[in-house]
Amino acid sequence: MTALVTVVGNPRPASRTAAAARTLAAKLAQPPGPVVELAELGPALLAAGDPRVEAALAAVRAAEVVIVASPTFKATYTGLLKVFLDLLPADALAGVVAVPLMVGAGPAHALAPELLLKPVLVELGATCPTRALYVLESDYDKEEVFDRWLASALPQLTRSA
Amino acid sequence: MTALVTVVGNPRPASRTAAAARTLAAKLAQPPGPVVELAELGPALLAAGDPRVEAALAAVRAAEVVIVASPTFKATYTGLLKVFLDLLPADALAGVVAVPLMVGAGPAHALAPELLLKPVLVELGATCPTRALYVLESDYDKEEVFDRWLASALPQLTRSA
Amino acid sequence: MTALVTVVGNPRPASRTAAAARTLAAKLAQPPGPVVELAELGPALLAAGDPRVEAALAAVRAAEVVIVASPTFKATYTGLLKVFLDLLPADALAGVVAVPLMVGAGPAHALAPELLLKPVLVELGATCPTRALYVLESDYDKEEVFDRWLASALPQLTRSA
Amino acid sequence: MTALVTVVGNPRPASRTAAAARTLAAKLAQPPGPVVELAELGPALLAAGDPRVEAALAAVRAAEVVIVASPTFKATYTGLLKVFLDLLPADALAGVVAVPLMVGAGPAHALAPELLLKPVLVELGATCPTRALYVLESDYDKEEVFDRWLASALPQLTRSA
Repeated sequence: MTALVTVVGNPRPASRTAAAARTLAAKLAQPPGPVVELAELGPALLAAGDPRVEAALAAVRAAEVVIVASPTFKATYTGLLKVFLDLLPADALAGVVAVPLMVGAGPAHALAPELLLKPVLVELGATCPTRALYVLESDYDKEEVFDRWLASALPQLTRSA
Repeated sequence: MTALVTVVGNPRPASRTAAAARTLAAKLAQPPGPVVELAELGPALLAAGDPRVEAALAAVRAAEVVIVASPTFKATYTGLLKVFLDLLPADALAGVVAVPLMVGAGPAHALAPELLLKPVLVELGATCPTRALYVLESDYDKEEVFDRWLASALPQLTRSA
Repeated sequence: MTALVTVVGNPRPASRTAAAARTLAAKLAQPPGPVVELAELGPALLAAGDPRVEAALAAVRAAEVVIVASPTFKATYTGLLKVFLDLLPADALAGVVAVPLMVGAGPAHALAPELLLKPVLVELGATCPTRALYVLESDYDKEEVFDRWLASALPQLTRSA
Repeated sequence: MTALVTVVGNPRPASRTAAAARTLAAKLAQPPGPVVELAELGPALLAAGDPRVEAALAAVRAAEVVIVASPTFKATYTGLLKVFLDLLPADALAGVVAVPLMVGAGPAHALAPELLLKPVLVELGATCPTRALYVLESDYDKEEVFDRWLASALPQLTRSA
């Protein structure tokens, strides 16, 4: 699988969300491709026409597969991630396979990536053939957590991408 | 594409839901395959071990692609459809590509198949690579409505199935 | 608080769903009022005009407060419960305060009552002023689980009812 | 009803979202109270400790009733609004009655405020006794649209606030 891009919507850089997303990315592609850390863009996301923001949007649109990762804030994805996704035009992710990934402190919000994050990606035109993935913060580097999900998800991704 | 099965969750037989589902089925496969009209099973769905119910469940599980169609009741899919899906064991739709289709009297519930019906199919293990489809009752036989959706959905279905 | 009615949407009678709902009912009203066990109505819910079904529907509509309880099947409420709710006409729960309650084997589906069950009750016109309540099967009789939820919910219910 | 605060999550100031929110506010309180236009805060929302942002958060928390208004971006509320809500601590809206309001160009996303915006407010501890409100852009000043919703919502708000 080629052309994997990972977007991390945690307002803090070097988060466990980023670590979990990198763990997954490393299992999907070698090398795992670029990581867009939205924390590094910060207020530029709410200004107009910052070239780093434009580059990040272009990278996501050009990807074959994109991991869209967020921590769980208020039982759903972060505003920071949504601000970034709001900058994409309609159907910008047509032809892109997207994997919704959310990381949470506890298990109670495990339905959030399927019920809340995936629909945003679908609205943007992405193909989301797998179950959305929810990972506990404490499991961010536990390979078996990702492998269990990949047992069904990898064949789905391989066919779609 | 082969082995298409259509499930219709309208409590009334010969509904516009069924007509819309058949319109879609005819565009996905020739011949379009069997249609499970849950209205014909009725109370047997809430009894135990009816052989027609068992046959319908087996047909869905053996399908390559399944259209899961429901009218919109109380802003979501029908209880009749969910009673049928509740009879499937965990992961029963693993390896099956599913298309969530809802039919409604007006446009206000257009998000229901994406936000409410698709997650049930994903929970059952189905691969749902396309946008969910919402069709107005009055459009049940309008080919262009289905063709517009198929423009993005057909390549997604073809890859996944 | 008076005129409390409890609806239990578990296909098996005498379930932990029913037990959890009764625990809650006993905390909301003395005596806790009638319990509609949909398991006892069974196939009659999918037939037409059964007098016990009609009586159950009338009881719910006449209630001041209704607890609507379901186990978690396929990551959401049961088809059995939805079949019952589908029999109510539009806005049938206008003026009724409703409490969505779901019981699950594990914590992963804890968002289901808020994201999936409450909207059905709101669509029917009910007033749902509280957080929806999710209770683990193993906690069905743990008073502190209900008391923690009631700390914020009881003032909300008291004002609305 | 006193102490009404309105939050507008449109990245453009003087939007039809703001106009719709003001129409509703004028029907709920006289005078209708302060309006927090998140567009005016802009990048400060993603920086740390801006005093205008702090003042806006404090105003929302101190309100008796808050209208939380957003245009529809990618079939849900805006990232800008969520960035603001993410700044609130857990349960920050306990004791506050919240009205979710979304404005959209067409009717297809009418379920979004109920299914997507209201749960965020509930997670923050708000009391949301009414149906969420979805208003077409073209109806932003049509009194009858708001009056129809208020027929059921006003008694619910009056009891809760």
